[in-house]
Amino acid sequence: MRMRKIPWAVEYLEQAQCRIKVPEQYKGKWKQFLDTEVLHVEIGCGKGNYSLGMSKLYPQEGFVAIEKNDSAAGVAAKKYDTDTEKGKLCLIRGDAQALNEWFDKQEIDVIHLNFSDPWPKKRYAKRRLSNTRFLEQYKEVLALDGQIQMKTDNAKLFAYSLLEFQNAGFQMIDVNVDYRKEPHPEDVQTEYEEKFIAKGQPIYRCVWKR
Amino acid sequence: MRMRKIPWAVEYLEQAQCRIKVPEQYKGKWKQFLDTEVLHVEIGCGKGNYSLGMSKLYPQEGFVAIEKNDSAAGVAAKKYDTDTEKGKLCLIRGDAQALNEWFDKQEIDVIHLNFSDPWPKKRYAKRRLSNTRFLEQYKEVLALDGQIQMKTDNAKLFAYSLLEFQNAGFQMIDVNVDYRKEPHPEDVQTEYEEKFIAKGQPIYRCVWKR
Ligand SMILES: C[S@@+](CC[C@H](N)C(=O)[O-])C[C@H]1O[C@@H](n2cnc3c(N)ncnc32)[C@H](O)[C@@H]1O
Ligand SMILES: C[S@@+](CC[C@H](N)C(=O)[O-])C[C@H]1O[C@@H](n2cnc3c(N)ncnc32)[C@H](O)[C@@H]1O
Repeated sequence: MRMRKIPWAVEYLEQAQCRIKVPEQYKGKWKQFLDTEVLHVEIGCGKGNYSLGMSKLYPQEGFVAIEKNDSAAGVAAKKYDTDTEKGKLCLIRGDAQALNEWFDKQEIDVIHLNFSDPWPKKRYAKRRLSNTRFLEQYKEVLALDGQIQMKTDNAKLFAYSLLEFQNAGFQMIDVNVDYRKEPHPEDVQTEYEEKFIAKGQPIYRCVWKR
Repeated sequence: MRMRKIPWAVEYLEQAQCRIKVPEQYKGKWKQFLDTEVLHVEIGCGKGNYSLGMSKLYPQEGFVAIEKNDSAAGVAAKKYDTDTEKGKLCLIRGDAQALNEWFDKQEIDVIHLNFSDPWPKKRYAKRRLSNTRFLEQYKEVLALDGQIQMKTDNAKLFAYSLLEFQNAGFQMIDVNVDYRKEPHPEDVQTEYEEKFIAKGQPIYRCVWKR
């Protein structure tokens, strides 16, 4: 499921209001900038429904959505700019590999990984957002009492992630291999999630602390 | 799914050949008795297919199947007694709470928990075979390089077990939330497992080391 190229995306992003063009400038100041005590960061937000919905559900909390794909980021940006009921929300168009150039040590309270690309081939394992390389980076920017939440439809990626997080020293505090069997209105469904739920596929979810 | 009462079970067990009546007497001597270097113990074997099949698949390894329900144990015992191709296999009719009266420290190489009763009500959590109370017992009788393998169809029990094992200090070495998506001929299907596979339900599996 490759994202179709959106012709207006790059141009839109250039002037998008919600977009933070030079995230390095906000390093250490995100909570102040978003006027919040709780900072959420979603990595790979796709078309952006999750962070938008969550920012409405938790209007006191701040959300930074990160997306490296121009077309997806463009769609998300337009959605955020035009939604008059959004909460404390902004967008970074870029690759999460630069996470600790954008965020200070222990600055983030919750990291969200939703339906991350599975990269099934072993030689691309390093690109998985739950690869040790990323986990070590998350540790740096995550608050001492922070959490990482992951949802996926992909059994292999889920199993891989359980082992990678364990081996990087994270502790599971909640795990569910059929998360949407109950509705869980406290957590917003992503675009991918809606599709998998419609097909009757189980949603796997885990929450870790450090 | 309660086991129907089998009228001949108790009487059969009294004279069953495969049954070890006083397991305490074999404490520390199971490998010698079964003439094996690798000792497997299955807790809650039900009607016994798993250990029987495994003993054929791994004829050098020894299997002790434990079952507390008389009817299930009776059916398993008869199966074991009449199968002329079984491997190194015997049965204990009893409650696994007595595990460390029957087995010596570090005597067991692999513990198998297959489709254990979920005991969904919280007030019965202590009866779950992956409850901390049991895990502490497993630690005593498990070899230092030993493993515990668990399979279940029950999402709640699986999630509960992942947390209990983690919190008791065990480490996952393999985990799968759709184990029978691939055939896995190296592992025998239990009676319950066959039914769930036929219904198209996923099988959850995890392997831990200490
Ligand atoms: C399969 S999509 C899921 C989108 C959305 N989270 C959902 O659940 O509907 C994964 C998204 O993650 C983005 N992504 C993958 N790796 C990334 C990275 N290193 N940095 C930023 N975004 C990334 C991809 O571009 C893609 O849009
Ligand atoms: C749901 S059945 C599954 C049987 C078999 N393992 C299978 O997969 O087909 C669970 C079995 O575990 C047995 N069991 C539960 N707790 C036990 C205990 N503490 N000691 C011995 N057997 C137990 C029950 O009597 C029952 O036969």
